[in-house]
Amino acid sequence: MIGTISDLLAAHRSGAARPADTIARCVELIERHGDPAIFTSISPPKAIAAALKALEGLDPATLPLYGIPFAVKDNIDVAGLPTTCACPDFAYDATRDASVVVRLRRAGAIVIGKTNLDQFATGLNGTRSPYGTPRNAVRPDLVPGGSSSGSAVSVAAGLVPFALGTDTAGSGRVPAGLNNIVGLKPSLGLISTNGVVPACRTLDCVSVFALSVEDAFAVLRVAAGPDDADPFSRPLPVGQPGGFPAKPLLAVPRREDLVSFGDRLAEKAFAAAVARFQALGARVEEIDMTSFFETAKLLYEGPWVAERLAAVGPFLESRPASFHPVVRSIVEQGRGLSAVDAFRGQYRLAELKVEARAILGRFDALTVPTMPTVYTVEEMLAQPVRCNSNLGVYTNFVNLLDMCGLSVPAEIRPDGAPAGVTLLAPAGRDAHLAALGARFHADTGLTMGATGAPLVTRPAASVRAAPGYLELALFGAHLSGLPLNGDLLAAGAVFLRAARTSADYRLHLLPEGRVRRPGLLRGRPGSGAAIDCEVWALPADAFGRLVAGIPAPLGVGTVQLDDGTEVKGFLMEAAAAATARDITAFGGWRAFLADEEARRAESQPVGG
Amino acid sequence: MIGTISDLLAAHRSGAARPADTIARCVELIERHGDPAIFTSISPPKAIAAALKALEGLDPATLPLYGIPFAVKDNIDVAGLPTTCACPDFAYDATRDASVVVRLRRAGAIVIGKTNLDQFATGLNGTRSPYGTPRNAVRPDLVPGGSSSGSAVSVAAGLVPFALGTDTAGSGRVPAGLNNIVGLKPSLGLISTNGVVPACRTLDCVSVFALSVEDAFAVLRVAAGPDDADPFSRPLPVGQPGGFPAKPLLAVPRREDLVSFGDRLAEKAFAAAVARFQALGARVEEIDMTSFFETAKLLYEGPWVAERLAAVGPFLESRPASFHPVVRSIVEQGRGLSAVDAFRGQYRLAELKVEARAILGRFDALTVPTMPTVYTVEEMLAQPVRCNSNLGVYTNFVNLLDMCGLSVPAEIRPDGAPAGVTLLAPAGRDAHLAALGARFHADTGLTMGATGAPLVTRPAASVRAAPGYLELALFGAHLSGLPLNGDLLAAGAVFLRAARTSADYRLHLLPEGRVRRPGLLRGRPGSGAAIDCEVWALPADAFGRLVAGIPAPLGVGTVQLDDGTEVKGFLMEAAAAATARDITAFGGWRAFLADEEARRAESQPVGG
Repeated sequence: MIGTISDLLAAHRSGAARPADTIARCVELIERHGDPAIFTSISPPKAIAAALKALEGLDPATLPLYGIPFAVKDNIDVAGLPTTCACPDFAYDATRDASVVVRLRRAGAIVIGKTNLDQFATGLNGTRSPYGTPRNAVRPDLVPGGSSSGSAVSVAAGLVPFALGTDTAGSGRVPAGLNNIVGLKPSLGLISTNGVVPACRTLDCVSVFALSVEDAFAVLRVAAGPDDADPFSRPLPVGQPGGFPAKPLLAVPRREDLVSFGDRLAEKAFAAAVARFQALGARVEEIDMTSFFETAKLLYEGPWVAERLAAVGPFLESRPASFHPVVRSIVEQGRGLSAVDAFRGQYRLAELKVEARAILGRFDALTVPTMPTVYTVEEMLAQPVRCNSNLGVYTNFVNLLDMCGLSVPAEIRPDGAPAGVTLLAPAGRDAHLAALGARFHADTGLTMGATGAPLVTRPAASVRAAPGYLELALFGAHLSGLPLNGDLLAAGAVFLRAARTSADYRLHLLPEGRVRRPGLLRGRPGSGAAIDCEVWALPADAFGRLVAGIPAPLGVGTVQLDDGTEVKGFLMEAAAAATARDITAFGGWRAFLADEEARRAESQPVGG
Repeated sequence: MIGTISDLLAAHRSGAARPADTIARCVELIERHGDPAIFTSISPPKAIAAALKALEGLDPATLPLYGIPFAVKDNIDVAGLPTTCACPDFAYDATRDASVVVRLRRAGAIVIGKTNLDQFATGLNGTRSPYGTPRNAVRPDLVPGGSSSGSAVSVAAGLVPFALGTDTAGSGRVPAGLNNIVGLKPSLGLISTNGVVPACRTLDCVSVFALSVEDAFAVLRVAAGPDDADPFSRPLPVGQPGGFPAKPLLAVPRREDLVSFGDRLAEKAFAAAVARFQALGARVEEIDMTSFFETAKLLYEGPWVAERLAAVGPFLESRPASFHPVVRSIVEQGRGLSAVDAFRGQYRLAELKVEARAILGRFDALTVPTMPTVYTVEEMLAQPVRCNSNLGVYTNFVNLLDMCGLSVPAEIRPDGAPAGVTLLAPAGRDAHLAALGARFHADTGLTMGATGAPLVTRPAASVRAAPGYLELALFGAHLSGLPLNGDLLAAGAVFLRAARTSADYRLHLLPEGRVRRPGLLRGRPGSGAAIDCEVWALPADAFGRLVAGIPAPLGVGTVQLDDGTEVKGFLMEAAAAATARDITAFGGWRAFLADEEARRAESQPVGG
């Protein structure tokens, strides 16, 4: 296998491998794998040479994807390669990169080739292409999933460390689930769709396939960003995955909404996945999925199918025979729909969004099977519409409801088929899903994709707040697990790192209020001690509200850390120190609380 | 005239008048005015008695609209009154209040009756109703404007202090302009449309007519708020109008985009309005209106007309003869449009939004004539479609582009016709427009509506931050007019009030950084002085970013003011006071700067 992004970056940075070696190995792996249905085109040697040359003289340490090869779904433009959408008569030579490809290249990544898909990204199974069906990397008789079939398989087979897909109805999740890899479907508008051939323009997004959540999120961080060339681009914060929350609350479909089409192994796999989350500390509650399932119907049985016609209408008029017959029959459904139908669909969707928001408001995520069951290629070809539509039960509603999603491998079933679990949340919670999914994935003990390589999770380096977030050092009741920590979590804050102040501070026990709290005060250099703290990242508005709600004598100022950096943090007014007990000697609030607890236990009469 | 909201509230609170007296006077004024085309129904005495009874025992000081009568456009449900939409065959008896009516009643307001409109809110002129055309309150031969004709006239004639309208294409602005009153068209989703008969559901909003900006905004503060019963409701902050900004930057249409259909008096009136803004300190820049005018065409010449058909389609099928012929011909245009047209329209609109955002980004507001010209009833009836469409040149694009708007009287032209000016800005800037519009209106010296009463502007009482905003006390370089004040304005902050700290503080001159700044420190009670400050309101995220960017030794904590209240404000760390000059004696940063300036002037050699 080619290795993960983390592996390759480490090698490029240490000098253990040069990008040129990596790319050569990548091309060789693709050749050796020998499945002609995965790639629709491979970057010509000249283009690769130019990309490698562009890296010369750049500092590997400053480029987050320095020399990392990747594959691009063939409905996304890459300059110099044809964009086919798996429809040879539709194909055109792209002269410019899609915005997302521009961003990835600037970060040092190198396009290896374009990947096969269900034609016009219409399908969830991978068999709807004149270029053949990519072999499922895990169990070759199964469909690879689609529409991003080639992208998912190329990652699962260890040919590239990551690949771009697109996702309108589940195309970034179902093939991930069917190939034992991670499929990250970001919030709509987070990654520009400029240069992507639309399926349903208001619902399309670019997605990321990778072997680990860590890798997928690293790509998202680079790929995301506002783009005026995409009118549906939104300035959402990408966020930063923190640790697994203490006791996340997960929604799961109630029993009658658990759909498996009789696949007992799929049912068992999902039950086991839920149990795994519970073992990790999650609380689980069943919800009614009616609103979600009704939403899903708007996509193919309602007005949104007209978006597919809007995208390829003129081509359909002129070359109807050029279409895959199943894709054509779907797109043609758009013809019978009126503008009144379209607006009424929007009204209903707006209502369903309110219902979904009300249901999901208090949950960390909605957890569903990525796909309700698996199908062999043979089964799919026998019932191409029904089996395909079955695969989308837990994916079709997601983009309509403006949610982000993350599919992570859950298990390899006794029959050798992969089972995936998908975490869903309202748009903007991508980082939160990544925190949940990364821990779950690590806990499964699965190897990655079809590579046989174990999932290695590295301890994160000192983590910095993502754009749109502000860092805050906490010293008291807001620390993880302490009484006010829930306020932080509710406000969308994420834990970044544990830290200590420089040795210039004194910690005081404030006169008791509703909640006991310490106060930090800077003295003259060296006149105090290093005090333990946690640094969290807060959305700017939550940061503002938190500061506005801090009672005197506490406030927020600048705190010097022992690594020489500065961070905003809680400080107290000096005037209040006169009446407060000095608890600097404990070195931190937790140590002080632990000492108190120990004293209380000692003074407790035995058997009293 | 009945008086303004401020007048009536003051009378009710002082006991000079009881709500029952006010309501009786209101009913009498309506009767005496004697125009049967203004109201479609009047609240029955029983309903009014019940509303008055509901006020008994409540504290006038806690209800922002205690005993204030108001009129409701007859496409908004009021329980117990018919909702006609100016179509007798469509009429139904409303059994529940629209959400906005519920909110206003809870605030103490009392529904006087329902007002006439262009049928199904389709029109901008006021003649499209089987109940007659309300007489323009200022010049009776002119159209009253529409579709909220009765609401605008009832306010302009001094019959009610405020009225609710609706606005899809300009129905909340054009009739305000034509009647010399204020028309506040809030951001979409700010006021719930639950219980409002839709015109174009994705573009409709409830609007407010009043005699002053102050009154209109007071109603908005009560009427606005999220509502799960309206799926298009959005949790936008209402904001709080501050003072007129120091040098606002206003966009105006470039010369070739100034449309008047040959009306020289309209051209002169707008030029004079722009000059008035300039005299008030505004800088003015011309912009290209092409994107805005293209957007407007989507409304009647593009797919959005299908929304009107979606709203009344079944009724149109069964009772085509019940429609006003012009309205019917407009609604029927929706029939020829496909779902593909609807989605393509959305794509184009999304692009136009990006263009408009790019154009307007750096402006405080876009300033346009409310209507390009005026028409008599006779002229309108002669060319009902063309004249109507001309009236909407500067209003049709606004809701499509998700902007808020405020129409304020500009002048009474030499021919006795009113001229209005409309301020426009992206959604969420309602309060900012109110600040600009209130000052402009006061400066015109106009009397209110057709009442002959002068516009009285009261000095605002101690102003508090609106929901979604956080208060911050400033002591140094962020004060109005000082170097960092621009950062605040750019972040959407609004000035609330001047204030002083309690006498416990000391002010220090910090060692110079990029910008000279003072630092405030609390000592023991009475050990310092009262220090001058300004309290500003910041959006929560801007507050967060401001705090996160404060350099040491400054921070944000709690400041005690001399009126006994507390507010968040800039404080310094005590450790830094040792090396800073104590400037407490000046009583504030401005006084210190003024003293320095005076010394510098003195030491300046004369003629040097």
